[in-house]
Amino acid sequence: MQIMRFQLPYHKLNHIFISHLHGDHYLGLTGLLFTMHLQQRTNDLHLYSQRGLDEILLLQLKYSSSVLHFKIIFHLIEPDQRKLIFEDASVTVETIPLIHKISCTGFLFREKAKPRRIDKGRLQEGMLLQHIALLKTGVDIMSPSGNVLYRNTDFTLPPKHSYSYAYCSDTAYSEKIIDQIRGIDLLYHEATFLEGEKDNALETKHSTATQAAAIAKAAEVNTLMIGHFSARYRELETALSEAQSIFPNTVLAIEGKILELDV
Amino acid sequence: MQIMRFQLPYHKLNHIFISHLHGDHYLGLTGLLFTMHLQQRTNDLHLYSQRGLDEILLLQLKYSSSVLHFKIIFHLIEPDQRKLIFEDASVTVETIPLIHKISCTGFLFREKAKPRRIDKGRLQEGMLLQHIALLKTGVDIMSPSGNVLYRNTDFTLPPKHSYSYAYCSDTAYSEKIIDQIRGIDLLYHEATFLEGEKDNALETKHSTATQAAAIAKAAEVNTLMIGHFSARYRELETALSEAQSIFPNTVLAIEGKILELDV
Repeated sequence: MQIMRFQLPYHKLNHIFISHLHGDHYLGLTGLLFTMHLQQRTNDLHLYSQRGLDEILLLQLKYSSSVLHFKIIFHLIEPDQRKLIFEDASVTVETIPLIHKISCTGFLFREKAKPRRIDKGRLQEGMLLQHIALLKTGVDIMSPSGNVLYRNTDFTLPPKHSYSYAYCSDTAYSEKIIDQIRGIDLLYHEATFLEGEKDNALETKHSTATQAAAIAKAAEVNTLMIGHFSARYRELETALSEAQSIFPNTVLAIEGKILELDV
Repeated sequence: MQIMRFQLPYHKLNHIFISHLHGDHYLGLTGLLFTMHLQQRTNDLHLYSQRGLDEILLLQLKYSSSVLHFKIIFHLIEPDQRKLIFEDASVTVETIPLIHKISCTGFLFREKAKPRRIDKGRLQEGMLLQHIALLKTGVDIMSPSGNVLYRNTDFTLPPKHSYSYAYCSDTAYSEKIIDQIRGIDLLYHEATFLEGEKDNALETKHSTATQAAAIAKAAEVNTLMIGHFSARYRELETALSEAQSIFPNTVLAIEGKILELDV
């Protein structure tokens, strides 16, 4: 629904990560897959999920007699362990074991280190393309005789920041995740309840806004985004202020919000 | 989504009829069931569907470790035959075999005949409650000696109209349904395509607006409602006018529309 609402390009979506099989976290998926099919998608789609999603999808395809135009590659997540589940040239994805009523994992997305950027104003006559490519990797260019021909720092700027983002939903308060997410740019952490319903959070294996903020503070993240608010709350300002009293740089997860990270 | 949007009372929904297992006709159901569960529903819910829906739901409940607060009673629809699948004091529901890529049935809802209405202004001193109850059933009240004590038509008005409604989606043009839906008040019939895409309708086992109107005309229904329009059409006025040229009393199925039937 939101992909349509915000007119995001479906065809760029090649990897989907599902934290757990509670209905509010995956029931929209089959409709999305059928929409991709109707839009004549042909490129592979990778699904990462706990055990069961493949079985559910296969049954839905069977009873609708559907053969999708594209291949779905299912990746089984093993619960209760941190694991690198995806890596390409620019990003890695690790699972974050969470504590919930059923097997549930968060995901840690990290951009890899980026190349140094050539400071174009300082390029000189006679530099070769292979010199420039080497400079981007951070090395100095040596002459055949062993002298420094071009000193890297004279011609390059530091790489752009490599962003990191953790998605932690749904989970009880869990200090075990802190070292894995330490220092990341953005932590999404569920905050189903207000502090007054702390006992309810414990029982249902959810977190309060205060607990989410305590995790963000202990992990020294840059920004905390809280979400997954219980429908019982008619406003979210209380959740925000409870979190901000512990961790000031907290924002609310509002669908469609675009967040500029100041890192 | 639409039940929420139009604030309809979930708890009054006790019977759900699913025509077939293409995603656009049932994927929202599991979310609805979980919402009912969260709203503490306890009364039984009856589901009528082709084979497979029970299996899909059981798998979704298994992997979410959910035990609903209410009982779901699954009724298997046998395709390719007309059958009375529900009856209570006021209504009957029959299946309407349709022609589609997978097993698909429409549903015919008929209100039963209603009692005659007492014309209160004409009641007389000395009439007993049991006389009034009998008059509603349409009989005359006789005296012990065998004379007519109260003539029914002197004290009652005709019953209110018993409405009938057929839901026919999705289906290729099928004259076989005509005698089953003859003379009903409201026919919902799919009209996926315009006349220009007649061949496409044939191939995908859908109907054109013109075909829906031809069925309505042949079955002499009161009102035709067309819907299930292909997303390729940016406006629906052409579909409406194509149908109205064959069957003037046609309306568009627009979500949230309230239709007053003039019967």
